[in-house]
Amino acid sequence: MTIAEPAAALGREIVAHIDELAAISAEPGVITRVFLTPEHRAAADLLMGWMRDAGMSAAIDAIGNVVGRYEGEQDGLPCLMLGSHYDTVRNAGRWDGPLGVITAIACVGALHRRGRRLPFAIEVVGFADEEGVRFASTLLGSRAVAGTFDARALDSIDRDGITMREALRAFGLDPGAIATAAHAPGAVLGYVELHIEQGPVLEAEGLPVGVVSAISGATRLSVTLTGMAGHAGTVPMALRRDALTGAAECILAIETYCRGHAGLVGTVGQIAAEPGATNVIPGRVGFTMDIRTAGDDRRKAAVGDLTAAIEAAARRRGLEVAITVTHENRTVNCAGWLKAQVAAAVAAEGYAVRELPSGAGHDAMAIADIADMAMIFVRCRGGISHHPDEHAELGDVEAGAKVLLRLIETFSPRDNAR
Amino acid sequence: MTIAEPAAALGREIVAHIDELAAISAEPGVITRVFLTPEHRAAADLLMGWMRDAGMSAAIDAIGNVVGRYEGEQDGLPCLMLGSHYDTVRNAGRWDGPLGVITAIACVGALHRRGRRLPFAIEVVGFADEEGVRFASTLLGSRAVAGTFDARALDSIDRDGITMREALRAFGLDPGAIATAAHAPGAVLGYVELHIEQGPVLEAEGLPVGVVSAISGATRLSVTLTGMAGHAGTVPMALRRDALTGAAECILAIETYCRGHAGLVGTVGQIAAEPGATNVIPGRVGFTMDIRTAGDDRRKAAVGDLTAAIEAAARRRGLEVAITVTHENRTVNCAGWLKAQVAAAVAAEGYAVRELPSGAGHDAMAIADIADMAMIFVRCRGGISHHPDEHAELGDVEAGAKVLLRLIETFSPRDNAR
Repeated sequence: MTIAEPAAALGREIVAHIDELAAISAEPGVITRVFLTPEHRAAADLLMGWMRDAGMSAAIDAIGNVVGRYEGEQDGLPCLMLGSHYDTVRNAGRWDGPLGVITAIACVGALHRRGRRLPFAIEVVGFADEEGVRFASTLLGSRAVAGTFDARALDSIDRDGITMREALRAFGLDPGAIATAAHAPGAVLGYVELHIEQGPVLEAEGLPVGVVSAISGATRLSVTLTGMAGHAGTVPMALRRDALTGAAECILAIETYCRGHAGLVGTVGQIAAEPGATNVIPGRVGFTMDIRTAGDDRRKAAVGDLTAAIEAAARRRGLEVAITVTHENRTVNCAGWLKAQVAAAVAAEGYAVRELPSGAGHDAMAIADIADMAMIFVRCRGGISHHPDEHAELGDVEAGAKVLLRLIETFSPRDNAR
Repeated sequence: MTIAEPAAALGREIVAHIDELAAISAEPGVITRVFLTPEHRAAADLLMGWMRDAGMSAAIDAIGNVVGRYEGEQDGLPCLMLGSHYDTVRNAGRWDGPLGVITAIACVGALHRRGRRLPFAIEVVGFADEEGVRFASTLLGSRAVAGTFDARALDSIDRDGITMREALRAFGLDPGAIATAAHAPGAVLGYVELHIEQGPVLEAEGLPVGVVSAISGATRLSVTLTGMAGHAGTVPMALRRDALTGAAECILAIETYCRGHAGLVGTVGQIAAEPGATNVIPGRVGFTMDIRTAGDDRRKAAVGDLTAAIEAAARRRGLEVAITVTHENRTVNCAGWLKAQVAAAVAAEGYAVRELPSGAGHDAMAIADIADMAMIFVRCRGGISHHPDEHAELGDVEAGAKVLLRLIETFSPRDNAR
């Protein structure tokens, strides 16, 4: 197999398109591109133009995804699905989501320019809403494609009081037709998503790309410790029931436990102490916990151990404790056969094969309901994401494109691979 | 010496007056009585009425304090000054401040009913603003009496944009005359303040009253730790620079250090983590520290040790640290000769003499600039103060009144005591 054009040209095309798409924003100077807005429309039009340039048919589906199709050796074959999302968080970076869509289009364009047809079709999907910024529910586009879109979400409202149903109509879509976006399971041979890592592991190990092993499950909890507020000057240390020193003990216990269990991450991201005055001992502290690891049993064991540790610390300190699970996502494993083909493509391009779990959620979680999936990670600078400083180097963009193109050209459906 | 009327009657009178004064509030159902308001005026009128009933002359001074004077065996003698404040925090308890003013008036009333004159005058001062709620500077009343009122405070504004100068005029006072509130040092033989403890020490030891050794100095600091924000799912524990786990280590270090040093109290009352999302590692955390102990050298040593411990923790964790002193008050010792007379009165009434420092500030801190001072603490339930649940039992109110009355009747000025 020969790549008929230099990878550098592919890389430059991708970065140019990333920059062009990044210019479509609700606010000048920052990147904010939210579901069912004029920016959504403009971005969809741009992507569909690039899809057509790459030899694909292109259309917007019933939820606002853009779907490009590149037929195989004959029309109507089952497809290898590639994609990611093209919505953003507010004040976003330019790479999270778009890199996967644009790289997939560029790879198809490279095949097209060579007139190459494969024994399967390729569909590139730009998912309309993965981040969930507008309606506070995520993976809307990929759930519609997987046929798992929850129609109750149509009644959810944005911060201006507009329902999703109204917003779909205003965009020119029919809320009653969302089921038409769903793909039949047999029509999708597999799904591969390329995405920036959004973490620092590849950078720390000096690798341009990584092979995702699984999308880690996550449990989020809310903890409240209640002690007794008091005057900072008059209550001796021995007579205090300080909710914040109790919380500090819990936060360190979470850190120590997670450091001691490879692959486990635990984060306390929010904390509030009441009454919150310099000279008052905190009587009540609330904090959040976010616990993730690949492997639901391991995550559940960790949540159990940490809950017990928090309860024990509270008991020792005479604090009341309330712990609530606020959110739970199971681990979604990448399919072994498809992951092996990604790993082979990485190795064939001369890169070390590094498997790593994805701690962040991705559209691949939703598509996994109708097709086996795998993911390719591209190194990002400093592990920074959801921030204007989000950055991927041109060389790493090229590496991702080379791996994805090789994967496409060497892809063998599961039945053949068996 | 005989107390001519039962202490129980004195206690009932005090509690009745406490309740009557508590009804004067800016809001029905709660107690809020702030400087230079109609509530201030109504409370002053009530106190002056009680002062006159107790045989005193009574007037409002240039800052809004009420000053009652009970002449001695001849007119114009130097005075023993008694008092506390009659302003409150918002949504206050009824005892913090008023107990000292009302008990002093009741004791003078008891002398008056017996026709008892002493070889010195008694002045009872109800200070107009100790809490500093309205203009964010404390001890305004007692500083005016001590001649240490800072005229720059006249330009400070309340939350409605009214300057203290304007508020004084609206109350009928002359801002240019505040110096007339000052007492000449030689005119005050000593100052004794009775106050609820606002802490749990006397309750824990089963004692109705305590003898204050000193008003502890306090240092308040502001600490900011800066690490690196990141995605809670994608950054492995070993690669994190989490500002909140760093802060937790510091908070526990403060607790452990203070527990290990008798009399030292350290409190982290405020904490804020940024960006403050469940799924984001905190990149920046700010927290306050309030460090108090009787003894400036001990407090300074503690602040130095704790600052070094925080800096060391930050260094180990790769966090930047900024520590600023935001407030510092020196320790004010109770005068040994006057404290000894308080202790003798406590013992003579049959109570165990327990010396304890005051962790909270009091008007006595300001009066100490013109006169030796001592303080009597009365037990309060649960150590709770600055809260509607603030409570002192009738028996403890009686105990405080008996001790103060005995102190007055046995008081011997310093020169005589030598």
